[in-house]
This record gives sequence, structure tokens and C-alpha cells, in this order.
Amino acid sequence: MRADVQRSDAERRPGGGRVTIVDVAAEAGVSRQTVSNVINYPDRVQAATLTRVAEVIDRLGYQPTSAAQSLRHQRAGAVGVEVNALGGGEPSEIAYPFLVRLSLAAPAHGCHMVTFGSTEDHVSLEPYRQTAGRRLVDAFVIADTHPADPRPRWLGEQGIPFASFGRVWDDPTFTGWADVDGHAGCREAVEHLLESGYGAAAAPDAVIAFLGWPPGSVVGDDRRAGWRAGLSDAGQAAGPDVACEQDLGAATDAALELLPLLPAGSAVVCVSDVLAIGVLQAARDLGVRIGRDLGVVGFDGSISADRHGLTTLAQPLDAIADHLLGVVQHQLATGERPDAGRLFRPTLLGRHSTVRGETPKENPS
Amino acid sequence: MRADVQRSDAERRPGGGRVTIVDVAAEAGVSRQTVSNVINYPDRVQAATLTRVAEVIDRLGYQPTSAAQSLRHQRAGAVGVEVNALGGGEPSEIAYPFLVRLSLAAPAHGCHMVTFGSTEDHVSLEPYRQTAGRRLVDAFVIADTHPADPRPRWLGEQGIPFASFGRVWDDPTFTGWADVDGHAGCREAVEHLLESGYGAAAAPDAVIAFLGWPPGSVVGDDRRAGWRAGLSDAGQAAGPDVACEQDLGAATDAALELLPLLPAGSAVVCVSDVLAIGVLQAARDLGVRIGRDLGVVGFDGSISADRHGLTTLAQPLDAIADHLLGVVQHQLATGERPDAGRLFRPTLLGRHSTVRGETPKENPS
Repeated sequence: MRADVQRSDAERRPGGGRVTIVDVAAEAGVSRQTVSNVINYPDRVQAATLTRVAEVIDRLGYQPTSAAQSLRHQRAGAVGVEVNALGGGEPSEIAYPFLVRLSLAAPAHGCHMVTFGSTEDHVSLEPYRQTAGRRLVDAFVIADTHPADPRPRWLGEQGIPFASFGRVWDDPTFTGWADVDGHAGCREAVEHLLESGYGAAAAPDAVIAFLGWPPGSVVGDDRRAGWRAGLSDAGQAAGPDVACEQDLGAATDAALELLPLLPAGSAVVCVSDVLAIGVLQAARDLGVRIGRDLGVVGFDGSISADRHGLTTLAQPLDAIADHLLGVVQHQLATGERPDAGRLFRPTLLGRHSTVRGETPKENPS
Repeated sequence: MRADVQRSDAERRPGGGRVTIVDVAAEAGVSRQTVSNVINYPDRVQAATLTRVAEVIDRLGYQPTSAAQSLRHQRAGAVGVEVNALGGGEPSEIAYPFLVRLSLAAPAHGCHMVTFGSTEDHVSLEPYRQTAGRRLVDAFVIADTHPADPRPRWLGEQGIPFASFGRVWDDPTFTGWADVDGHAGCREAVEHLLESGYGAAAAPDAVIAFLGWPPGSVVGDDRRAGWRAGLSDAGQAAGPDVACEQDLGAATDAALELLPLLPAGSAVVCVSDVLAIGVLQAARDLGVRIGRDLGVVGFDGSISADRHGLTTLAQPLDAIADHLLGVVQHQLATGERPDAGRLFRPTLLGRHSTVRGETPKENPS
């Protein structure tokens, strides 16, 4: 409960611009305890006092902090995490594995996970409002952050601790995030492909291409830059740089155009497993032998990648889940934000799609 | 709290074989309240009384019911659901959607969902023991039940309410389950295929085949029987009945052997989406045009099916989640089990893989 103590100290600090409980008590001619009772236990306060203090609170614009309010409420011991993507978009393939890791990591952080959902297609504050309002959780872990995401600001305003899987784009000063280092991952994918004998080592004209999302996506552009850096490190020219939406059909179509341009021994680094599976499908259609003639690397470490024998950059969900729960528990214990966001390197899972001279079998286990 | 009242009534019933709190009170020469205090609030009882009553409890073998024990504990307001399948097997594709539906349905049942996990490859009681021991939940929803599943018996012994997605195989008298009617679903798949112009309507020798799991799986056999019944209803002979494990590579291999035997206008009903996607892959390899030349139906309504433009029987997860939470809340409120398990019909989602004269595009949206 050190957070509350600190907030109380802050409130007592003289000369601050913010209206404190001390100001209200002085103005209303009552004790701080009475002001607190008006806020937290109005039924314990005489009607006349209640009216007088409430009037002062309104007039001075005093806002009790959430931490102060929580004084009278026991901790829930729980961290909330939204589960959704029912309506429009498909859920990310790592949504479930991420939730599993959070659930596994929670006991070591002295908490448990509470899930809540929304049927809205878009990100909505409503389920957060309800879950916090019902006091089911002490904090939240949010994911799938995006520019103009309303959640970080709202949670901040409410004084509700949270941590984010993914950077908080609109607030670069927010440090309670963990993210995957897509740049380092794609750079490593290129190294892996070159070491495995793809690119210039295979044939003078063989290349390492990139299949990404259309430029403008921060995550996608970061991965693309990593691919380019990997080739630059090795002193090799970048192969074709092709883009399509995160969609299996679009990826297959894009690969049907791309693959005929690539000499045997070339490879494609893909921004996601879904796009990489599109490349595998196009290769089937074209009779290109995956592994032997064409190396393919995906990104995410999804179940589908495993099924298709696809080499992929697995998101380090264990470490990320552990880090995020540590961040919220630290906030709950001290009221302090961590001093930096943290990037975690993905893990390259080598499978048959990057073994030259071998055609992959799905699910080779 | 009617459960507790009923248990108390039962305990007072004379002539019953079970040792009741009344027996203990009479034998120890104390009131029932004192016996209850010994069990629930030992610190309120004098040492001498505590010793005497505890001795009688031991001697008579009195076991307080969990309901009685719960008298002194506030309800957690939560239902637990395990998330796992990290180690060995891949998680079911519907594990996440099912959890989403539970989370969405929970508020209407006055509860919320708490997730917990285990890193064990096999079903373990340990995470249930810990979650119940920490009193994080009042009840559980279990899934992926199988013969010799230790969970139903253990939960029953502990007096912890639960409901099951999937029948409780070792206890046919257990009625707190909901399951998908695979028989009705596969029958409907056959009807859909015949109406869509596959089978005898397409060509005299065209057939409706089945790609299932090896015989012996209760779920798989039920679906196979539904396929057979659908053909029998229509007065058509059953096509080839092929089986493989739940594995994309195995399904592709099986389909590579099966498809050359099927005249154009034939179709395959598959026991799962994973197997159906294997059929789609084999068709690509063989140049068979899905939709136009070959109809394919999967089972599960997975994200992958959507991506691949695959017609599938979607598990009615909304209805199942709602039913299961109703079952546990009813048990919590009344102590009564429902009088029957319940089968829910899957919903056929028609996509391009069963449109004759059309080749499918993935993710046609």
C-alpha cells in the first residue's frame, strides 16, 4: 500500500497547484477523516456535514485519487486481459498462447488472470470500464495497441495500473510496455538463410526477398528494415520487396507473382506466418520445391507454422508475459512506472522450409 | 445458499447411514453451532471443547460437506477454466474462441472467468487443486474430456461444481455437459453437398467420401455415422471411408491417395478442419479444382477454415458457453445437477469449397 502513502504525502505537500484533501478539510472546517468519509462512507456522515463538504469538493474541483479510493477496497488479486476479435478481424494467432503464458506466469506474481470480452469490432473502453467498475481486477494487461488507441489514456486517467504488449504509440513517454524486436528478428532470419545456403551462396543470381505488409505499419516497417539490414551486413543486395495485406489469399496471389522471378536457391523472409503460408501455397501451385529450391521464413511462431513445417521467428511470449506482470505488480506495490519499455528478441525456430536439398513435410514431428 | 440449507436438512434426517453434525453434537454433548465452530472457527472455541469435539469427529468419521465449509467463505464470483496445451499437443483451434464465448457469457451469469494453466503435457489435477485451494473460483468449466479423465471424479469428490464441454465418458450418469452433435452435423454436410450438386447428381459415378480419424474415437465415430446416415437417407451408396490422424501432413498424404479415385463432382466430408485443409493442399498438388471438381466440408468452424474458404460445421460455442455457465450457477444456487446433458447442433457455414463451378479464393471476404 505504499502507493497510497505516497499519494497522501503528495496531497499534504503545501504550495502544490493541485487541490488536496487538506484544502477541502480546511475550507469546510472538518477533519481530513471526515472528508474521506464523505467520499468513501457517506452513510457515516451527518446530512448537514455531507452537504457542506460535498459543496466544497465541487467548488474547489477536488478529485480524490483512485489510489485513495482503493484504500477502502481490498485488492482483487487479479489482472484483467481482454479476449475478443470476434466480430470483424480474426484473432491474432498468438492471442491464445499469450493468454496461456500470462496465466502460467501469474501465480509467481501473486495474482491470477481474469478474462473479459467485448463483441465490438473495434477497440472499446466499455469492457474495461465494466471490469474495473465491478472491481474484478487491480490492473490490466493490454495488447494489440495501435495509434489513437483510447485505452492507455483512459487507464492513465483512472489511475489504473496497466502494462502493454506492444508500444503505446501515442505516448512515447509511457514505459510500461514489452514488444518483440522485429528488426533483430528479421535480421537474424537473413543470417540464418545465408548460413543455410540460400542467396548468393546458392547461385550468383539467387536473392533473399521480403514479403511484408504495405509500408506505413510501424511493426511491418521495422521488420522490413531488419531484413534490409541483414543483407546489408552481409554485403548482399536486397531482393524484391513485395507487400500485401495480412491475408492468406492475398499472400498466395502476391507469391504467385513473386516466385517466378526468383532463381532456385532464393528465399523469402515474410512479415508473418500467414503470409509465409501463402508463399508455401503458391510454391505448391507452381511446383517449386520448398526447402530445396526456395527457403521461407515466417514470423510469429504460430501453430500454423508448426503444422506447415515452416521456419519462423517465435515471439518470446514467456518472457513478455512475465515482464508485463512484473510491471503491473511493481506499479501496484510502489506506484512507480518502470523506467523503460523493453524489447525482446524473437527465437528462430528452424524447420524444413529452410533446409536446402529437402522438401518439407508438414508437421514433421 | 439453498444448497447449504438442503444439506443441513439432509444431515438432520434421522436413520440415515451417514454421520451428521447432529450425531457429533449429541456424542460430544455440545450444540451444532459449537461443532460448526470447531470446524470453521476453531479460534472461537475453548481448547478443552475443541479437543473433545475433534476427537468425536475423528472417531465417528464425520466429514463436513464442502457446502457447509463454504458457509464461512465468501463466494469468489468466478468460474475457472484451464488454458494449456503448451508442451506436447497443439491447442485445439477452438480453445481460444471457446474462452472468448465463456468470457462474454459470464457477466449475464453473475460471474467472471479466471484462467489458470499448467505446463504438463497430460491432463493434471494439480492446477485445479491449486486454483481451488487458493479459493480463486467457485466452480470450473472443463473441456477436452476423455476416457479415464481424472478431473470429473476429483471435482465430484471435492464437492466443487463443474460443467463439461464434452461428455464425461467414465460416468454416463453425469449430466452437466454440453457437446456438439457431430452426427447431426455430418448428416447435414451430406445433405448440403447433395443439394449443391455433388455426388450422384453430378455424375453417375461421383461419390461423397469421408476422411475421418481412425475408428475408436467416440467423437470421430459419431461424425462418421452421421455421414453414413446422410447418404443412407438420400438412398445413395457411401463413398470411400478413409482415416488418418489429426495432422495436416497425414491428411495431405491420405488425400493424395484418395482424390485420384474420385470422379469429378465428388466430395469429401472431413471430421475436422485440419484434415479438410489437408484435402485442399492435396487438391492443389494434383491440380484438382476445389469447388468446381471437388466439394470439401470441414468440421469446427476454425479460423483456418475461414482463411482457406472452406465450408465447415461451426461449433455452436455461444450456446455451449452459455449453457455450461448456467449449469454451474444452477449448481451453486441450488446444489442440484441438471437432469440431462445437452447436444447442440453445429452450424453449417457455406463457403467456396462447396460451390460447384467455382474455384475458391482464400478468405473471400
